[in-house]
Parts: sequence; structure tokens; C-alpha cells
Amino acid sequence: MASEEVLDDLQNGYYIWQRNDGFKFGIDAVLLSDFAKTCTGRVMDLCTGTGIIPLLLAAKSAAREICAVELQSEIAQMAQRSVEYNSLNDRIHIMCADLKDAPELFGRGSFNCVTVNPPYMKAGAGLVNDGGMKTISRHEVCCTLDDVIRVSSELLKPFGKLFMVHRPSRLTDIFCCMRKYRLEPKLIRLVAPRAGKEPNLVLVHGVKNAKSDLKLLPQLIVYNEDGSYSKEIDEIYGR
Amino acid sequence: MASEEVLDDLQNGYYIWQRNDGFKFGIDAVLLSDFAKTCTGRVMDLCTGTGIIPLLLAAKSAAREICAVELQSEIAQMAQRSVEYNSLNDRIHIMCADLKDAPELFGRGSFNCVTVNPPYMKAGAGLVNDGGMKTISRHEVCCTLDDVIRVSSELLKPFGKLFMVHRPSRLTDIFCCMRKYRLEPKLIRLVAPRAGKEPNLVLVHGVKNAKSDLKLLPQLIVYNEDGSYSKEIDEIYGR
Repeated sequence: MASEEVLDDLQNGYYIWQRNDGFKFGIDAVLLSDFAKTCTGRVMDLCTGTGIIPLLLAAKSAAREICAVELQSEIAQMAQRSVEYNSLNDRIHIMCADLKDAPELFGRGSFNCVTVNPPYMKAGAGLVNDGGMKTISRHEVCCTLDDVIRVSSELLKPFGKLFMVHRPSRLTDIFCCMRKYRLEPKLIRLVAPRAGKEPNLVLVHGVKNAKSDLKLLPQLIVYNEDGSYSKEIDEIYGR
Repeated sequence: MASEEVLDDLQNGYYIWQRNDGFKFGIDAVLLSDFAKTCTGRVMDLCTGTGIIPLLLAAKSAAREICAVELQSEIAQMAQRSVEYNSLNDRIHIMCADLKDAPELFGRGSFNCVTVNPPYMKAGAGLVNDGGMKTISRHEVCCTLDDVIRVSSELLKPFGKLFMVHRPSRLTDIFCCMRKYRLEPKLIRLVAPRAGKEPNLVLVHGVKNAKSDLKLLPQLIVYNEDGSYSKEIDEIYGR
């Protein structure tokens, strides 16, 4: 176990192993798991990282089985240790694998829901993080948005549900790619740091083979004017 | 001139002929013309109706020439009377025509900008308005979103600009269709009636042949909590 690992309390009955050098979950994971809390049956979390989404969904959703893949073995091992620490081995199954192999490994059309917090940035775009591991988590060097959406569609049953968090700047790519793989966007929610500011996250829900009919939820505001969390964010964090 | 026509003061130096039975402009036209106020050179307004967008752009923008097409002759004639009333004949050219013929009539690749406030609803969707004229203005019975975007792309020069207002529920259709016709979405702004409510309008700006890079402006709120217009709406209306 690397010395910089810490065990953090998720305040939901579970704990998570994280690393102080960057592999710590952010508000995007918290918002995605809340957005996906209606998940039931068999759920797949792609790009799971330290397993934060499965751990949050284990507490928040009625998901029966949560499978999760992570490409980087060191991170996947950390996720597995969290699963074991919380005695969730019967419900959460972490696998170190390339998500492109997931349909073969777990079964095509066998999932009710897929959740994913993918790398946000195109390969070569923006500042590349120092460490190779963080680069893989944040940039599309090992999987593209097209891969993520194609694989999600392959994993889902007909009318299965995708829940994703991403950057609003990728919304055209997301919508066009979802249509390409017959994952129709049904619900989106934009997230802005404060009222009157540009949204910097988007929650996207799509349904496989569904008819087109997009609904936009009211924008979610993270911080009040005074810098404290908004009432809705406090509720999502369960405070 | 039909008896129910009224001449309304646009408070920008110009007047507009409208009809009390439904052909009156709404906030969508005001927001679109403000969103498109950077238009210069030769501008085309599709689905112009009573000519509200050309009349607002004549005051707000540096557009040299504003062409406009309207399918319904009775409405196009009303628009033409407004142009004449304001002595704008040299700058605004209204034509009663099917927008699908516009590239042939006005010249392909000859416009710097296109503005459009198209019918929002799919043919057969929602309540069909009583009168045939209103149905044509609000439902895609005579032109579809695909027609509007294809024609816009045909009319625009390379790097020409599209400005459109539409319903957020059509955002997937809008983005996918824009990509199909090489009009890349570059900027969108969602409009919500009040803070915390679902957005009900979206302003979309695309650029022909541009690279993908979507920016979202802060959400525009129409009404304050007390029912008065927000500061930004007051500024857009020039009050």
C-alpha cells in the first residue's frame, strides 16, 4: 500500500481509499451519483478510478450489482481495497480492464444502467497533468468520448440508462455521439459554480433506443453568494 | 389592409404592423436580435413573419443589407408595409418565398449572417393553433429544422454566422443537424423564466466550417422573484 494513501469517511456508512497526490474524488462524482440514484438492477461504472461512484451508489441506489472497470492497475487495486474494507464484495465487482473490452468481459446488453465520469479533455488539449496516471484519468489518451458512448450502448439492455458527467463544452460531441450509438439524450442538467456564472459541468441522461424528447432540469448552482454551498448541494451531500 | 392590424412603436425609432389575433412578436424575437446584434454585412432572416428581426437589427446592428423571407403572403405584405413605413426600403428586402428556394433566389454562399426564429414544434406535436397561418408559423408543417439549417448553411459564406432561437427540448436535433450541414455550434445561451426554473428557450450561434469548441454563456433569467423583468432583460429591451 503506497504511503500517501488515506482512508476517507464518505459519511454514508462507507469509507474510501484515496491518494493525496491527486486521486481524490470531486463534486462531479458526487453530482453524478446523485443524478444516477434511481439506478436499479445491474449497473456498470466505466472509468471508475478509486471506485467512488460504486461506493456512493451502494448507499444511494437500489442497484443489485455494481460492476466497475478501471484501466490503471494501481488505482483499480485501491478501489478493490475500498470494496473489501466496506465488505461490499458481494455487491461491487471491480475489474482492472480496458473499457473497450467490457462488453466482451461482462456481456453485451446485460446492464440496466451505465454510469461514467470519463476523461474530460481531448488528447493534446489543455494542460497535461504531470503524472502519467493523472493524464490517463483526465485526457482522452486511452479512451475517447466515442469509445465511452459506444461501449455504454453495447453494455446496455434495450431502454437501459446512461448517466454521465462531462464538460458543457463537449455537449455537441456528446449529443451527436449518443445519437450515433442509439443512446437518446432524455435529460440534462447544467451545473454552474454561482448564479450568473457560466456552467462548467453537465449531467447527461440517455436511454437506449428511446424516442427523442429532451428535458432540461433547472440549472444547479453550487455556491451561494457568500461562498457557502447552496441548499441543494447541501442536500445532495446529505448535510 | 386587414382591420385588426395595429401599428406598434418598437421604441427604437421604428414601428411595426402587427395583428391582435396572434401575429405579435414575443420575447424570443427580442432576445434573438440582441444575441445577433454583432451581425454585419449581408444578413438573411428566415421565417421572418412580420419582419420583427430585420426591424430590430436595423436599429441594433451594423448590418448593411437585411434580406428576409416569409412563406405566407399576407404576413409578408404586412412586413413589407412596416419596411416602407420606416423608410427602410434601401436596407431591408422582404420576399414572399419558401425558404427552401432562398439559396436560388438570393445566392448561395452570399451571406455573412443568417438569423432565424423557426417553427418550434414538430408537425403533429403539441396543440395545433386554430388558424392555418399560426399553425404554419409555429409547427414544422412547411419547413423542418433540417430544412432551416440546411438552407442556412447553403446561404452562408465560409465562416458565416448563424443565430437561432429555439426550444431547449430540440437541442439534440439542433446540434446533430448543425454538424450534418457543417455549421458548428460555438455559443449557446439558455433562457429560464425565473431562477431555479427549467429553461424554456435557447439561443444558438454556429459558424460555418468552424472547429468544434462550444461555449455556454451564463443562463439568462427573464423575471425577478417579484415578477418584474430582470436587470439584463431591461437592458436588452433598452429600458
